Amino acid sequence: MTRFERVAVIGVGLIGGSFALALKKANACGTVIGVGRNAANLQVALQRGAIDEIAASATDGARNADLVLVAVPVLQMFSVFSAIAGVIRKDAVVTDAGSTKRDVVATARRALGDALGRFVPAHPIAGAEHSGAAAAQPGLFEGKRVVIAPLAETAPDALARAEAAWRACGARLFRMTPDEHDEVFAAVSHLPHLLAYALVSDIAGRGNSAQLFGYAAGGFRDFTRIASSHPEMWRDICVANKDALLAEVDRYAAQLAALRPLIERGDGHALEQLFSKARAARERWLNGDYEA
Amino acid sequence: MTRFERVAVIGVGLIGGSFALALKKANACGTVIGVGRNAANLQVALQRGAIDEIAASATDGARNADLVLVAVPVLQMFSVFSAIAGVIRKDAVVTDAGSTKRDVVATARRALGDALGRFVPAHPIAGAEHSGAAAAQPGLFEGKRVVIAPLAETAPDALARAEAAWRACGARLFRMTPDEHDEVFAAVSHLPHLLAYALVSDIAGRGNSAQLFGYAAGGFRDFTRIASSHPEMWRDICVANKDALLAEVDRYAAQLAALRPLIERGDGHALEQLFSKARAARERWLNGDYEA
Repeated sequence: MTRFERVAVIGVGLIGGSFALALKKANACGTVIGVGRNAANLQVALQRGAIDEIAASATDGARNADLVLVAVPVLQMFSVFSAIAGVIRKDAVVTDAGSTKRDVVATARRALGDALGRFVPAHPIAGAEHSGAAAAQPGLFEGKRVVIAPLAETAPDALARAEAAWRACGARLFRMTPDEHDEVFAAVSHLPHLLAYALVSDIAGRGNSAQLFGYAAGGFRDFTRIASSHPEMWRDICVANKDALLAEVDRYAAQLAALRPLIERGDGHALEQLFSKARAARERWLNGDYEA
Repeated sequence: MTRFERVAVIGVGLIGGSFALALKKANACGTVIGVGRNAANLQVALQRGAIDEIAASATDGARNADLVLVAVPVLQMFSVFSAIAGVIRKDAVVTDAGSTKRDVVATARRALGDALGRFVPAHPIAGAEHSGAAAAQPGLFEGKRVVIAPLAETAPDALARAEAAWRACGARLFRMTPDEHDEVFAAVSHLPHLLAYALVSDIAGRGNSAQLFGYAAGGFRDFTRIASSHPEMWRDICVANKDALLAEVDRYAAQLAALRPLIERGDGHALEQLFSKARAARERWLNGDYEA
């Protein structure tokens, strides 16, 4: 079994902390070094056994590590990659957990230099609205998908070891190109987050927001759950995946504009058809008909 | 304690079935007569003990009942009210469970005739994406809100008995006018349902829908849960609450249009502010800060 002696986790939040806990549970790693901006959060990670040591910088953390996970909001990737580029061991593997891939790959090309071949871009599909090391759990990736988007330059042994690390966390691996990844996730993840944030923000800004929230119920709670997601992480995703997200926003606005006249003229038949089609598709999805 | 000897439930779905089960559990009723279009569903209601008898029509069901619940999609209210108007006992109470109130009240005025004073418009805030008698449960209304929107004509004793019935189901009662009700629920319930249906419908209609659904995860699942709601019920709500819903659709479209340039110019600061404000408001809501 693949084993890592010294793992650096840069960004010990929900994803980074869970990655460390999962590797430890699988007995796939030795020491885990944590790096982060928030000292209190790193202490939580220490106490919870996700990490064994704290390093003062990404450079210090990555030095001598044979596996580096970069799990920071995507717009911080450049500074992290720049900080670690010079100390990455020739046999080390660097992977990330960024929710966008096109910009992360472009950033890696600009910042990683000779270490680019050791980089294996990845995106674990296992978010949650809770964040921080306190929310980390060893089973977070169990049975979940991880998209791997290797570069042409990625060394085969680096790819194999990064995939082994994610598999040790219990994940199921899928390959996509960065472009394909970003378009798919703009539609099924980034847009819904934006829509949920927009709805809650709009209601919160009204004069009668207390009354409105007072009558909001279970449907509203689930619809807006993702509006409790990490604002900085989602800010970065919106900026990093701008083009694909804008295309989805426009498409959705057009969809709403097409729905409007159905409501206006009371076209119950068309509305019911649309709702029935949506429900049926969602049932097929829940039944696993779209599982790879 | 208020007790009803003969309860007619017209529309024995999730709401009607749960109402009957809750009254029985509270020992607040004798016989329950069920009326519905779907014979198989009525058999389920019988087997589950929600109803004791099946009546062939709303007229037959309401005859001799001292409590009538009308729990059908709102555009069916007219035919049900028309069918029962002539047989409602002078001392009976009629209440409903419609998700809109303005049109239900207007319909009652047109159809109930002399029985109008016995009608107590109500809306239990306890929906779910599951429907039918099979999904009914005695605790559905426990601790949940029920909006009561009495008419000027509603007789005080009818109001008191209808409120007692909903209270016996465990609900907390709140008074609103029909207009106020429809505006509040357009914002926190009807619009989110429309948005969720629109997203799923759009994704289901794409050439790569299988791939898109294949990578949809927990955030998408919760965001779209309400797109598994009863299409006919939601068709009727969209038609019945057209004006308030269109106002919300336009407001939301304007909100998206205002968000678009923030993404286009990569205004991370403004995006993060909006996301943070939304998250904070949602946390306050979850903490119960908006509870009446």
